Amino acid sequence: MSLRDEILEQPAAVRRQLGASSAPLDAVGRRVRDHGIESVVIAARGTSDHAAIYGQYLLGVRNRLSVGLAAPSVISLYDVEPRLERSLVIGISQSGASPDIVAVVAAARRQGAPTLAITNDPTSPLASAAEVTLALEAGPERAVAATKTYTTSLVALARLSVALDPVSAEESTAMAGLPDAMAQALTADDAAAAAARDLAGADRCLVLGRGFEYATAREWALKLKELARVFADPYSAADFLHGPVALVEPGVPALAVAPAGPTSPGLLEILADLQGAGADSVVVSDDPAALALGRHALALPADIPEWLRPVVSILPAQLLAYHLTRARGLDPDAPRGLAKVTRTF
Amino acid sequence: MSLRDEILEQPAAVRRQLGASSAPLDAVGRRVRDHGIESVVIAARGTSDHAAIYGQYLLGVRNRLSVGLAAPSVISLYDVEPRLERSLVIGISQSGASPDIVAVVAAARRQGAPTLAITNDPTSPLASAAEVTLALEAGPERAVAATKTYTTSLVALARLSVALDPVSAEESTAMAGLPDAMAQALTADDAAAAAARDLAGADRCLVLGRGFEYATAREWALKLKELARVFADPYSAADFLHGPVALVEPGVPALAVAPAGPTSPGLLEILADLQGAGADSVVVSDDPAALALGRHALALPADIPEWLRPVVSILPAQLLAYHLTRARGLDPDAPRGLAKVTRTF
Repeated sequence: MSLRDEILEQPAAVRRQLGASSAPLDAVGRRVRDHGIESVVIAARGTSDHAAIYGQYLLGVRNRLSVGLAAPSVISLYDVEPRLERSLVIGISQSGASPDIVAVVAAARRQGAPTLAITNDPTSPLASAAEVTLALEAGPERAVAATKTYTTSLVALARLSVALDPVSAEESTAMAGLPDAMAQALTADDAAAAAARDLAGADRCLVLGRGFEYATAREWALKLKELARVFADPYSAADFLHGPVALVEPGVPALAVAPAGPTSPGLLEILADLQGAGADSVVVSDDPAALALGRHALALPADIPEWLRPVVSILPAQLLAYHLTRARGLDPDAPRGLAKVTRTF
Repeated sequence: MSLRDEILEQPAAVRRQLGASSAPLDAVGRRVRDHGIESVVIAARGTSDHAAIYGQYLLGVRNRLSVGLAAPSVISLYDVEPRLERSLVIGISQSGASPDIVAVVAAARRQGAPTLAITNDPTSPLASAAEVTLALEAGPERAVAATKTYTTSLVALARLSVALDPVSAEESTAMAGLPDAMAQALTADDAAAAAARDLAGADRCLVLGRGFEYATAREWALKLKELARVFADPYSAADFLHGPVALVEPGVPALAVAPAGPTSPGLLEILADLQGAGADSVVVSDDPAALALGRHALALPADIPEWLRPVVSILPAQLLAYHLTRARGLDPDAPRGLAKVTRTF
């Protein structure tokens, strides 16, 4: 399977994740309630770290949990185990083979904390280390750049959030409709190809997003770096005014994930400024006002609840990264200098 | 005072912070012990967020606390208060005026959590919101790019760590010697100017660091972006092999903070690879083996304990950013598009 096949397979992969047994999540829910857990630590690296950022917003906003992202090196480099016994500790790793992620989960389990592995390999060391494992059900991911293991990780976290605090009937319908919404988002393919042809000469860009979509901005930037070899600098729109705005200039495109919702007013202001400055821009949004401010517009289906939307909004971003890679004469299936499993020293 | 004056003033500023009353820290220490606190949440943005990253390693490794960085938008955008009552909540802000940082600390205090403000303005809203305030004592910072408020924030966190778990006599001596070590690090000025002349044509670069020095890499990259308008992409050396290595090519320099210690073997391997690939590089280190692998070497004084070294290692990095700004024909005292206080929408 090529990268493109795996991008296009995501609606089916997410359908598998949505249909998988909820027994592991029910077990975690019981442990969280029995232990009076109020905080969560997520250990992850690379693409999985962006799923963790989504988890930070999701479990914070929907479940009022205080969520921190682990610094795995504290254990792996300094051989110190922070006290984790009163936290739910989640390890996210496509391969389940990153030794430093395994070490965080193993330490937490030794301390008696509830532990959850989210991995595409339920026979991996990470799965063995955790008390409970939720398999991604993404199917084998052969492309070096992760796509379907990212979206299925987001859905796994969304299912965890729902297991902790049930959703309304309306939200439940929206969740079940994710595969269809994803299929609709993939129709941005031609628009993404056109934008990519236009941006092929840029070797730097900014990527903006905020709140739930900050994870999307980070993941988009990583795909642009590892596939298209573009220096893509991801920012929370909140931090954007703290310095990086100095980087905006002609020839440095700005890519933004700017859907309707509470993050919208600030992003519309930034997009209008960028348009006024003549910046090249690509906007991913379900909001016509935001799309109108972009030189290129990648439309998202409307009416997806904000907490589920990152599962969909990353798809046009992946398509743009794929087409930009090809437009720059590079091979999306052979990114330079990358191996599928990185074993952190 | 110009940016350069403020860079050079840092040994004196840190001496003031070291000499300030420890009463606020003792008060926090009592609250942490009385409440059986095991986790810490730090809320910060921009440069202060890099001090928070240092705090994550410091309080994790020295104090076995589980430290997470808050996502302030969870409160400010989504109006949800995560449960914080069993955490120590620290807000770090030079101005003390960032509404979203104030909101996190105010929420925590309402919930009964111990709260600490670290700010250069003890009359600021952040100071009012927190139960305890530790003033940075950096003196007025007029340059838009933060320097002395960063190093004094690091020292404030180091003093907090010591208030929670006392240091050995040897470490106490090293802490008292920080201003002298900083003065010695500032003698890298000429070497930094020479490196800057050599790198003036680059508009992209990578910045590497790991463990305690990951904070330094992040802060170095921000100074390069906001002052010299270079797309500086910061990485933990642990993540570097996960994708961004694809960005290394001639004309894209790699800057590394690579001192002796547990992070050294991995970084030496990466530096040797970069040298083999003919990459331009600048190495900040106290280790002759690491310095020898860089095209430009910025030496640090030896024998600074690892947990205190980020206070010193950022200085040659600031000097390089300053000289590179000038070498690129820009004004370090008038960075484009930046204001001193950013009020996050």
